[in-house]
Amino acid sequence: MPSVSSTSPIETDALIIGAGPVGLFQVFELGLLGIRAHVLDVLPHAGGQCAALYGDKPIYDIPGIPRCTGHELTQRLLQQAAPFAPTFHFQQLVSQLDRMEDGRWQVHTQHGLHFLARTVFIAAGVGAFLPKAPKIEGSESLSHAQWHYQLGSAADYAGHHVLVWGDTDAALEAALALSPSGSHAARSVTLLHRRDVFQALPETVARFRHAVAAGSVQLCIGQPLRVQTDGSRITALDIATPEGTTVLQPCDTVLVLQGLSPKLGPVADWGLAMERKTLSVDTESFATSERGIFAVGDINTYPGKKKLILCGFHEATLAAFAAAHYLHPEQKTPLQYTTSSTLLQQRLDVL
Amino acid sequence: MPSVSSTSPIETDALIIGAGPVGLFQVFELGLLGIRAHVLDVLPHAGGQCAALYGDKPIYDIPGIPRCTGHELTQRLLQQAAPFAPTFHFQQLVSQLDRMEDGRWQVHTQHGLHFLARTVFIAAGVGAFLPKAPKIEGSESLSHAQWHYQLGSAADYAGHHVLVWGDTDAALEAALALSPSGSHAARSVTLLHRRDVFQALPETVARFRHAVAAGSVQLCIGQPLRVQTDGSRITALDIATPEGTTVLQPCDTVLVLQGLSPKLGPVADWGLAMERKTLSVDTESFATSERGIFAVGDINTYPGKKKLILCGFHEATLAAFAAAHYLHPEQKTPLQYTTSSTLLQQRLDVL
Repeated sequence: MPSVSSTSPIETDALIIGAGPVGLFQVFELGLLGIRAHVLDVLPHAGGQCAALYGDKPIYDIPGIPRCTGHELTQRLLQQAAPFAPTFHFQQLVSQLDRMEDGRWQVHTQHGLHFLARTVFIAAGVGAFLPKAPKIEGSESLSHAQWHYQLGSAADYAGHHVLVWGDTDAALEAALALSPSGSHAARSVTLLHRRDVFQALPETVARFRHAVAAGSVQLCIGQPLRVQTDGSRITALDIATPEGTTVLQPCDTVLVLQGLSPKLGPVADWGLAMERKTLSVDTESFATSERGIFAVGDINTYPGKKKLILCGFHEATLAAFAAAHYLHPEQKTPLQYTTSSTLLQQRLDVL
Repeated sequence: MPSVSSTSPIETDALIIGAGPVGLFQVFELGLLGIRAHVLDVLPHAGGQCAALYGDKPIYDIPGIPRCTGHELTQRLLQQAAPFAPTFHFQQLVSQLDRMEDGRWQVHTQHGLHFLARTVFIAAGVGAFLPKAPKIEGSESLSHAQWHYQLGSAADYAGHHVLVWGDTDAALEAALALSPSGSHAARSVTLLHRRDVFQALPETVARFRHAVAAGSVQLCIGQPLRVQTDGSRITALDIATPEGTTVLQPCDTVLVLQGLSPKLGPVADWGLAMERKTLSVDTESFATSERGIFAVGDINTYPGKKKLILCGFHEATLAAFAAAHYLHPEQKTPLQYTTSSTLLQQRLDVL
């Protein structure tokens, strides 16, 4: 028996897991065939690895685009998919995937979304991009209210002495947001990083330096060693300084922003045929070992596989045709061209 | 024994047959792997079908390019391939392909080019785009000097009464070129078409109408029935008019510009495994049944094949990796990313 959910499920012909470039192009190819899609991603925005790891770096091997950044490619693919009005669900990590008796797939996310999907496209890249979660002595037993991995709401910080651990744009921006004039003003805010050099954009660093100079943000250089508590709540962190001494940095809330790291996550637990942490597919349909589930992009494998975005575009295209046949076995799905087909141009809304 | 050629052959690691979008991207992917290519095409320009049939029509399904014309896509791919300085040979139809004893492929063109290529990439689309060559009664026995399928040189027309048969841009432009003020001025020029409506661009039609009004180009509406000769040379064409009468249109040279039509041509004679006029390939390497010969784009077939440009991009990529391994079996060809690899960025000349 499938588990019973308290919320009414979202029913859809197609659910795409992953809003990276290949997931976005999957929306487009399904749309051309008249299939609407919902799209899930664990990140708070579209673009996947492309946006998270090289948003501002140039890519040179997208066919017909001699140079673009990850952000630009994402914007182009969002624009191309726009006529098909996909429904995006961001900051959603899929926790469970089960086959229903009627052949549909039941998908639950950690944040409580519930789908009934006739087809599922796993376009999850090298996995879900989750915040890196380094442990330090004593941090394991802390509640989420004291040890955060994302900025979240202002209410979590009001009146608190906050330590932000990290040197990325997100970390510096969070420290500024937590300063007295920021959107998440805390009682005090200190940024902790092992050295006085940051990975962030020069413009972000300049604003951060200005806030430090003005005294609205404190800066602490060193590595955290362990958490000091009064039994249940944080009181301070022990910090190893570059000079080899240990200092006590008082705080009652810690925000860890050490960047993102891909985790294959629950995909590995869904019973799909795998090979070296990737999903085995055939090259005719990019179907996995389970009927109705396709895998496209870096998460799949087949003889000759190259983990390139442009290969994922091809895979998503053939998967869309295979899905159309799976959803409507009684219909022919002839190949039509966007240049000449009135039907495709109607769907694209360019007539 | 391989046949002996009088001209010194061009030796190359890679010869690409077809300068359409997939052939151009084949240049790029080979270039990233350090392999230089020569490219042949029967057309006088790059772009293949994409430029010949829908140069000014929009394409909507190139990933990351929501809309572009065939000409624009061609320009983008030429720009992307430019760092790898391919050598183009236009207006070359491959006539012969033979394996040499050393494993290389000997390729001859109808216009006398001769290559020795270690790998050959057939990116010939639906075949070579050749001028449509309608026959009319009496035209079979005429010499090329009287019955042309392309404008060619001005010397062929000086002092002649020329009939241009067609209504495309190329036909109208040729009639203008053959008019007294044109680059190929003839003694007289008449454009023949079955009705007084043309397929050409409005701007071309306007210039043509102006020349007709000025008397520098004649216009004859009707269908040619047969060629009249004085025994060896054309004297006139019999024309069926829309009113149902037959008129005699004097001329001594005919230029047929009825558009282009793809012909599979000699590819069918090269002994490669085929299926329904396409070349069978495997999806790991896009190799044909002959070692060192790859087939990419619309000319190949495999389970799931869709004749889409974006699929050809993927095929060209995997074929490039397979060719690199074939050319240098002793070397590893690891997958590198243009975003992060210094080697690739050096080859792209972007460092």
